[in-house]
This record gives sequence, structure tokens and C-alpha cells, in this order.
Amino acid sequence: MIYADNAATTKMSEAAVNTMFSLMNDCWGNPSSLYSHGQKAKDILEKAREDIASVIGANAREIIFTSGGSEADNQAILSAAAQGVKNNKKHIVSTAFEHHAVLHTLEKLKRYGFEITLLNVHEDGLIVPGELENAIREDTCLVTVMYANNEIGTIQPVHEIGEICRRRNVTFHVDAVQAVGHIPVNVADDNIDMLSASAHKFHGPKGVGFLYVRKGIILSNLIEGGAQERGKRAGTENVPGVAAMATALKEVVNDMDEKAKHIASVRDRIISGLKEIPHSALNGDAFKRLPGNVNFCFEGIEGESLLLLLDDKGICASSGSACTSGSLDPSHVLLAIGRPHDVAHGSLRLSIGEDIKQADADCIVSSVKETVEYLRGFSPIWRDLMSGKKEFIL
Amino acid sequence: MIYADNAATTKMSEAAVNTMFSLMNDCWGNPSSLYSHGQKAKDILEKAREDIASVIGANAREIIFTSGGSEADNQAILSAAAQGVKNNKKHIVSTAFEHHAVLHTLEKLKRYGFEITLLNVHEDGLIVPGELENAIREDTCLVTVMYANNEIGTIQPVHEIGEICRRRNVTFHVDAVQAVGHIPVNVADDNIDMLSASAHKFHGPKGVGFLYVRKGIILSNLIEGGAQERGKRAGTENVPGVAAMATALKEVVNDMDEKAKHIASVRDRIISGLKEIPHSALNGDAFKRLPGNVNFCFEGIEGESLLLLLDDKGICASSGSACTSGSLDPSHVLLAIGRPHDVAHGSLRLSIGEDIKQADADCIVSSVKETVEYLRGFSPIWRDLMSGKKEFIL
Repeated sequence: MIYADNAATTKMSEAAVNTMFSLMNDCWGNPSSLYSHGQKAKDILEKAREDIASVIGANAREIIFTSGGSEADNQAILSAAAQGVKNNKKHIVSTAFEHHAVLHTLEKLKRYGFEITLLNVHEDGLIVPGELENAIREDTCLVTVMYANNEIGTIQPVHEIGEICRRRNVTFHVDAVQAVGHIPVNVADDNIDMLSASAHKFHGPKGVGFLYVRKGIILSNLIEGGAQERGKRAGTENVPGVAAMATALKEVVNDMDEKAKHIASVRDRIISGLKEIPHSALNGDAFKRLPGNVNFCFEGIEGESLLLLLDDKGICASSGSACTSGSLDPSHVLLAIGRPHDVAHGSLRLSIGEDIKQADADCIVSSVKETVEYLRGFSPIWRDLMSGKKEFIL
Repeated sequence: MIYADNAATTKMSEAAVNTMFSLMNDCWGNPSSLYSHGQKAKDILEKAREDIASVIGANAREIIFTSGGSEADNQAILSAAAQGVKNNKKHIVSTAFEHHAVLHTLEKLKRYGFEITLLNVHEDGLIVPGELENAIREDTCLVTVMYANNEIGTIQPVHEIGEICRRRNVTFHVDAVQAVGHIPVNVADDNIDMLSASAHKFHGPKGVGFLYVRKGIILSNLIEGGAQERGKRAGTENVPGVAAMATALKEVVNDMDEKAKHIASVRDRIISGLKEIPHSALNGDAFKRLPGNVNFCFEGIEGESLLLLLDDKGICASSGSACTSGSLDPSHVLLAIGRPHDVAHGSLRLSIGEDIKQADADCIVSSVKETVEYLRGFSPIWRDLMSGKKEFIL
């Protein structure tokens, strides 16, 4: 099996599994309990908090553990909105190709009278900082922009956005679910006020994530109840999960540059190979993208059929976000960068990890080439394109 | 170590750990992915859903996986409230000694114009169904009552409450976090519309729980985002955690009666022993309580000191809910059943599991006796009580 869907989820590292296994067996106390068995769990929880904070340039007290990236996104945005209501600032700036955890939360806020400006992400999958600055108004309470896109992997100019938000005194939230553990992320350098991350995207366990909240930013509760996480997130702390997340994160950021260099070289080999397929196009900027992300559109085919046939060849890939599979709508991300419906339907996302080999790249390229050709062989759209009944877009 | 704090958290069963370990290594795909590696994870997720549903008398489609009991409580209550807003019914009936996940959510709703009636739980820790029926009004949109209390273990007359709610056409939510896996729970028999449960309370992993939602009840999202859990709970599914929860649940309900009989016999041995301590009292009804719950007040001592000294003797216990430890306020549950502040401060909760032995009971009793006596030896309150400066309550 060649696993090329790391943007959907990653395999847990051996070290992370071992952390989890040993804590489930030996350190399963409730960290809120007074006795030593509970306090031992508390110590492990706080050590994990410190480890995670130090990776992203934060203080331990600025990290809140959540059940994952979606929860963190929801809590961050609703918290900023609650402050917005207090200060009579009910305008939010975001982008058209955010993750649904952000977009759907913004939709919810519209029902409470919020105005949302979704910035254009342009053909290269990037926003223009000047356009963001122009979109900020007197009543803007939040800018929320993802660090790297989950489908096309483009990396936003987060540093510039952070500077603008700081200067304009607007809270800046970053959905960094695809970035943390893959590229360097530093909340201090980038003036980030809140940042969401998810463990299972960087070889940690599923069901665990964290929200960074800069000191001074007021957080509202999404989940009410016990006094865990300094009263900001109720529920018995998932100590084994959190500790495994810290283990995974420390591991992935170790020699990150070296790993990223290798991954990007394989990525570029795949991109070069796939570009040879006629009427295909890379989605998103070729350089300002995650080291492991390849996203192509192939005219005249359905992405879903491509995936199923690649699965037969032992290649795990996706057509976009895993979260929206099952939906017949084309990717909102590809539409946002200007791909027409027909073309957006024929997309392929490959997201590779550090275990990928150059030989895997060659296997992926030849398999995709073969399969695209095969599918076009009986595609009515392709026939129309070839006969001139329809015009090629790519 | 004698672990007598199973109401705070339980040790994962070996089978649950093994399920989790093997899935983390071998079945870590994203269940929303189309390829077989993802679909294998999807199959395991759905099998777990069926297993869990069948334990509580539900259909698989009525189970939504969450990050735990608190999240499930929040989502259930806010969903009923959203329907209440639609139907102009903004009154909720609950009890004074619910878990904070319920009480704090109800507090939040007050800020949105909801009226909350908190029923008296009386000295025995039980509500009176007739009082509940009287509290229901034309504009009542929800009754939320916990199945068994997390501190004093009293089991509410859920069946009668369910009948009343059905007859009066009011949605009935049950926080069953302390009940599921400990006593028989059947949502169909008891006319329950929504029910919350948490895996780590029945030897499953932390960070996983579920919400039962009867077909026809409209659920709102707490966490917005991807289309997981039929669009009702976003976030990549924690397949290893969910499957381990199912493993644990199937295991605990196997021979549950036999296990409960053993646990209750040890419980009663502890209760008899502790009753010999002068000026002590069992909290909550002696019979209508969880098989594993013992909760006492000892006059003239501080619960916290008792716990620390018991810890030195290798006994893990608590003074109330782990969620609120660190707070200086006495337990709201003990206050709700009429214990005065002073007495409520000197409480001890022992929550035992199936691995408990009769010899452990004897060790617990002698340790508690010894420690209470020791603490009273230098307690100024005890001196005042003994000298008649203060009057004994118990």
C-alpha cells in the first residue's frame, strides 16, 4: 500500500502509540484527583502542555486541549464572536476556501447578525494581504485564515496577515491543522492570537487536538461543565491522548527541515510526472505549498472513479477533503480558486509523508497516468472534448 | 493500591486497551475516505455503533459519538433548547444536584431567557416523580435528570420520569454517565429521548463518549464542520477510541448482575464499617444507589486532609466530584440533599469496581476509622463539638 492521504489522517508514530499504550495501562488516573495516582497523570498532562507550547513558541498556560481541530476552530471563532457582541463589532474576515469547521461556524454566526467577508483566494490559492487589510473595518472582531489549505496545500502569508491584524487591533485566528508538524509554525513570530491543531494530522492519535490562546484573549466555553483546562474546556482530560500528541509532535518537528526537503523532492517528482498528462493542471501555487501536497485536475474524468481504481492498485488518495466525501458537490476549495464545476469534479489530492520513496512517486505517476487514460477511454465528456463538441478548459 | 475512585475514572480493561492498540497500528485510516483502508475503519466504526446501541436498547442510527459525557450533555441540552426557541417553549426542568456539564449549560441558557426549575432532591438524594410532574408547564421543552448521581450514587426513578415526560410530550434527556456499564440501562423501556455516556467511566478510553438521540428528536450541532456522524458532530472519527469503548461496554455488561451483586456486597460491608464511626452519616439512600458507591460525611474533619492521608495508606478516594476539585466550595450535591456547609466539607466518596475484594473493604474501613480519629484529634471544630461549644449535627 502506498499511503498518499496524510492530509486526511496519518498513521500514528510508534513512539506515540507506545506513549498511549503505557499510559493507558499505568497512568490512567483522573488528573483532577488529589491522590498521587491522579497527580501523576496531572504531571504528565502538564508536561505535554509545556512540550506542545514550546514547539509553537507559546507558553504552556496558553494551550487548551480539545477533542481535535474542529472543536478548536469552533471554540476560537465563537469566543471572538462573543467578544465582538460585547464590543458591538459583528464583522469577521475570512477566506472562501477555509475548512468547513470554520465556514460552517461563520454561517452559524450570520444567523446571529454577523457580517462575514470571505476574501478571494485567487487562482494560486493565496490571499493578497492588501485585500485583507482593505476588508478590515471598524467593526471587525476577527480575522480567521487557515495556515495551509487542506486540499491544495497552499500556505498563506500568515506573517503578513498577523502584522496587519496586530496593527489594526483585530484578533487573528489561524486554523493550522494542516500546518502544525509539517512546516515551522511560531505563534509569537507570526502575531497569532489563536491557533487550532489536530494530533492525528501529525502522527498523533485521533480525538485529540489543541487550541493556542494568547494570554489576554478571552475564551468562551464551547463545552460547559467541570473546571478542567482552567475552566475553559470541560470533560475529564484525555491524558494518554494528549501525551501521545506531544510525543508525536516533538518527533515530527525533529529534523523537520530535512524531512520536508525529502518530502518536497518526491512531491515535485510526482508533479512533474502528472503534468505530462494532457489537459491536466496543478491546483494551487507550485512553491507556496505544503511539502507533501499534490493536487491536480484532470479534464474529462470523475475523481471518485479515479480513487477507486487507484485503490485497486494499492494507492490511497483522495479527491479533496475526507470530511465532505459522500457529498456530490465539487470541492468548494477548487471552485474558490476558479476551477469550473466540470473540472473540479476530476480532482486528485495526494498528500505524502516522510516514509514516501522516490520509487513510490514513480509508481503513483504511472498508475495515475494509466488510470486517467483508461477512464477517459469511456468518458462521454472526454469524447465530446475530443470531437470538439465541448471546449477544453485545461 | 486500593483504587476506590471509579466514579472519577476507571482503569481501561485489557480488552479495551488491546482493541485500541491494534486499531492504532492497523486500522488508522480515515473512515470518510473512499479507499478500502478507510472503509475498513468505517466498518469498525459502524460495528461499534451497533454494539453500543444494542446494549442500551437503541438503533445504531440513534448513536452519535462524542468526545465524552460533558460534550454529549451540552449538545443534548442545547439541541432541546434550540427546539424550545422555535416552539416558544423556554422552560426546562432539572434537579439541583446534576453534574456541572448540565447545570452550567442550564446557566448559559438562562442568559438567553430560559427559565429553569431545579427540583429538590430531598435528603435521600432522590426526586419525587409527582413533584416533577407538577413542575412541567405548557412551555417546558426539556426535562433533564441524571440516571445516577456522580457523588452520592443515588439512582433516580428514571422509568417513572420517562412515563411522565412521554405523557406530557416533553423531551427527556438523561445524563447516564455514572449508570451506563454499572446498572442496566434501556432507553426504550424508560422512554428516554436523549442519553449521555462516557467511555472512561466503564473501563473504556478517555476522550470518547456517546449521545443517544431517539429517532425523531432534532439534534443541533455543537461542533460544526465536516459531515461526520450524519452531519451532527464534526471532526475525524476517533475509530480506535470508539471501538475500544464498544469493547469495554460489551465486557462490563456481560454478567453485570453477578458483578453488581459482588460489588454491592463489598459496598455494604464498607457502609456497615463506616457507620461505626461516631458522628458520621451515609449520604443518599442506602438501597437506591449504585452498587459501587459509598459516600459519607464525618463531622469535625476536612475531606481533603482525609484523602491525602488515605493516599499515604494506598487508598485512592475522593471527597466528591473530581471535576470540581481545587474548588473551596463544598459539594453542591451534598448541599442539595440538605447537608450544612460544615458537614459537607467532611465528605468521603468511595466508588469501587469489580476487582474489589472483601479484604479491601476491611482495609478501607480500618484506614478511614483510624484517619478520621487522627484528624479529629487536632481539629478545632471537633474540640468545639466535644466541649459543647458547638452542637453536633450528625
